Amino acid sequence: MSDLNSFKKQALDELLDLLRIPSISTLPENKADVQRAADCVEAALKTAGMTRTEQIQRGTHPLVYGEWLGAAGKPTLLLYGHYDVQPADPLEEWKSPPFEPEIRDNNIYARGATDDKGQTWILIKAVEWLMRRDGRLPVNVRFLIEGEEEVGGEAIERYVSEKPAQLKADAAVICDSEMFAPGLPSICTGLRGIVYGELLVEAAKQDLHSGVYGGAAPNPIMAIAEILCALKDKDGHILIPGVYDRVVEPAPAEKEAWASLPFNEKEYLEKEIGATAITGEPGYSVFDKTWARPTLEVHGIRGGFVGDGAKTVIPARALAKISLRLVADQRPEEVINQLKAAIAKVTPKGVKAEYKHLHGAGPSLVNPDSPFIKESALAMEEVFGKKTVYIRSGGSIPIVGLFQTHLGMPSVLMGFGLPDDNLHSPNEKFHVPNFYNGIDAVIRYMERLGANA
Amino acid sequence: MSDLNSFKKQALDELLDLLRIPSISTLPENKADVQRAADCVEAALKTAGMTRTEQIQRGTHPLVYGEWLGAAGKPTLLLYGHYDVQPADPLEEWKSPPFEPEIRDNNIYARGATDDKGQTWILIKAVEWLMRRDGRLPVNVRFLIEGEEEVGGEAIERYVSEKPAQLKADAAVICDSEMFAPGLPSICTGLRGIVYGELLVEAAKQDLHSGVYGGAAPNPIMAIAEILCALKDKDGHILIPGVYDRVVEPAPAEKEAWASLPFNEKEYLEKEIGATAITGEPGYSVFDKTWARPTLEVHGIRGGFVGDGAKTVIPARALAKISLRLVADQRPEEVINQLKAAIAKVTPKGVKAEYKHLHGAGPSLVNPDSPFIKESALAMEEVFGKKTVYIRSGGSIPIVGLFQTHLGMPSVLMGFGLPDDNLHSPNEKFHVPNFYNGIDAVIRYMERLGANA
Repeated sequence: MSDLNSFKKQALDELLDLLRIPSISTLPENKADVQRAADCVEAALKTAGMTRTEQIQRGTHPLVYGEWLGAAGKPTLLLYGHYDVQPADPLEEWKSPPFEPEIRDNNIYARGATDDKGQTWILIKAVEWLMRRDGRLPVNVRFLIEGEEEVGGEAIERYVSEKPAQLKADAAVICDSEMFAPGLPSICTGLRGIVYGELLVEAAKQDLHSGVYGGAAPNPIMAIAEILCALKDKDGHILIPGVYDRVVEPAPAEKEAWASLPFNEKEYLEKEIGATAITGEPGYSVFDKTWARPTLEVHGIRGGFVGDGAKTVIPARALAKISLRLVADQRPEEVINQLKAAIAKVTPKGVKAEYKHLHGAGPSLVNPDSPFIKESALAMEEVFGKKTVYIRSGGSIPIVGLFQTHLGMPSVLMGFGLPDDNLHSPNEKFHVPNFYNGIDAVIRYMERLGANA
Repeated sequence: MSDLNSFKKQALDELLDLLRIPSISTLPENKADVQRAADCVEAALKTAGMTRTEQIQRGTHPLVYGEWLGAAGKPTLLLYGHYDVQPADPLEEWKSPPFEPEIRDNNIYARGATDDKGQTWILIKAVEWLMRRDGRLPVNVRFLIEGEEEVGGEAIERYVSEKPAQLKADAAVICDSEMFAPGLPSICTGLRGIVYGELLVEAAKQDLHSGVYGGAAPNPIMAIAEILCALKDKDGHILIPGVYDRVVEPAPAEKEAWASLPFNEKEYLEKEIGATAITGEPGYSVFDKTWARPTLEVHGIRGGFVGDGAKTVIPARALAKISLRLVADQRPEEVINQLKAAIAKVTPKGVKAEYKHLHGAGPSLVNPDSPFIKESALAMEEVFGKKTVYIRSGGSIPIVGLFQTHLGMPSVLMGFGLPDDNLHSPNEKFHVPNFYNGIDAVIRYMERLGANA
């Protein structure tokens, strides 16, 4: 197959097969599916010409490793992606089933299409093409594709900290972020960290009749409401003492660059969010709010009777899933302690509240002056025909901090997702032209690095 | 069967059969079970010697009617109970299954044991005994046993307002409340009303990634928390404008009587509630808080991801089930309007909030000087050997207000439940001696009324 276009079309078909596997890492019942996805990725690495592949067990789901180190004297890239996906509920809101990929209007609709199977596939297929065409690569590569990104990434954290020598490389390339706008090549230079856990409130020893006890007995749902309102005010300002102490303001030049990005707040509100107003801290732009400011969110809540009709009960307990997104230089451990202290301080009379930590990751910022970043920007400019913009992301890719800390290398975040790709939501999609251009851009990046770095 | 003790034992066995029927009126899937319970009650009324019985359809589940009007010149009692029950969840907290009644430590454990199958059975079996013994009754009786008490009681409301002549009586006897303490006969002279509905908050058009949008997008769970905290403060004081305007303070004599009731606040907290503190409005006693003050409670809440693990989503919507308990002279319609106005006023930016009303009932107070109340107090004194106390209940029995409004009759609330009977909760129970003494007390009440009224 000497035609790159035919190759890319076949790569798309293969991607659809991978998307059919419901590799939801957070659900125990999908464990075998996650393994199937790992096997599929390992097979693809072999096909791409890796001289050695391996599945590494350090948690529930394996890391898939593959290497080709035949370019003596050339830089080595650590290529990162993940093959696990978020749960797909609420299922009824999907137009086509989440694990039966469907192409509509030049978009692939499926859970994991963008996040991150589609983008992982870009890395693998770019390498496969170069290997087919040239019988070798312009740089050395080590793939490290994980299966627990959506569930905390503890396995990869363990492995990276245990075996830094086996992952020795000059830079990591991470394909798990988004372009700022369709057709506009983007490199992400900053990510938020996260601290995620459960807030459990217990009141009475059992559910109580709200007529008999209402007015005298503590209500755990009300208590969660009071705690949440004491942790964040109506303006979106977090009230946890000390939480803003380490927050670094972006440099004026970076803020200026953001201000010149193509952005229509009305469209953002109406098309992406679809609510009646943008909320959050007054005096900050949407970029500030989502890229450079910490936030506290509630992801889910349950307690008491929520069936049809009425049940007049004061429940015994209630639970909320909460997180803080962190920005440089906030530290997860410190924020966890601040959060726990704040909860203890604001817990209302009559109830017990406990924060149970589930996972965390530090924020990260990369230096845009690294040659690995610059060549990436230039490669994307060639493919997309537009000047690459430097953006940040409000999401968390914990691996970036991990690579910096344990492997001492910068991460190049080449992202090909789009802002309206519905990550973590029903009808997640991936724009087919971005899949194709992504393969081209990674090919050019490696060629440029092989020639210039 | 001439022995009352043997009769009562057999009545208990029959009650267990009724308790085996999961007549949960709020769940559509239990509709056939509710009908079975209605049939069982109608059969019992026939056995008790009613000359006419009927199932009356005015809603989802039938009203069961039965009459014996052969005591010319004597008063007529309208005997009220209900055969439907609350849902039984959380099922895992029951020591024995909710619909497999088990007698332990002289208590019947089952959903509906006290509320209200056991107490309804007292009325039916007292009448049956008198009829068996004497071939007639000392007073005229009309039974009206409903099947939608736990779901709003709309069918009975419709029937009572449509056909007042068919229910003509001098007083209603309602067996659906509790004794103040074991062995202490009690008549309930006041009930709280209720306004119950759903608070639905909608934010974005779909679930959003909390990393990408967190900080700029509205969060409906946070919005519900803010609305709840704006409706009730940390001290349990309701913040809805105008809501206290019609609240009548109990007479000083009534409050003094309450103060002399046997009550240990520490035991109430530890044994009944089992939380770390009694909460609610400062400066009010537990009796004030639960009998004479309105309260706002959250019965259930749901929104977003609440499975195991983590999902970093900002949900599109969230829902809470809320109610206000009302006291004399609050009016449900007025409170609904006050509540809706308050919600509209405090709904935070970016979200839409809607209160969907499900059901309501006015509060009620009865005059303790009625001869129907006084004879009841004396009958219970005879059986229990203690002076009857006048109490109130924080719960709502909408039928009391209905009987007052449409039939112009007082309601006699003879209650045989106990404060720790776990109404609406797992492990609901009914004390067997109270079941037996209840039958004796109703027998003596009718005998006294036949002789003295």
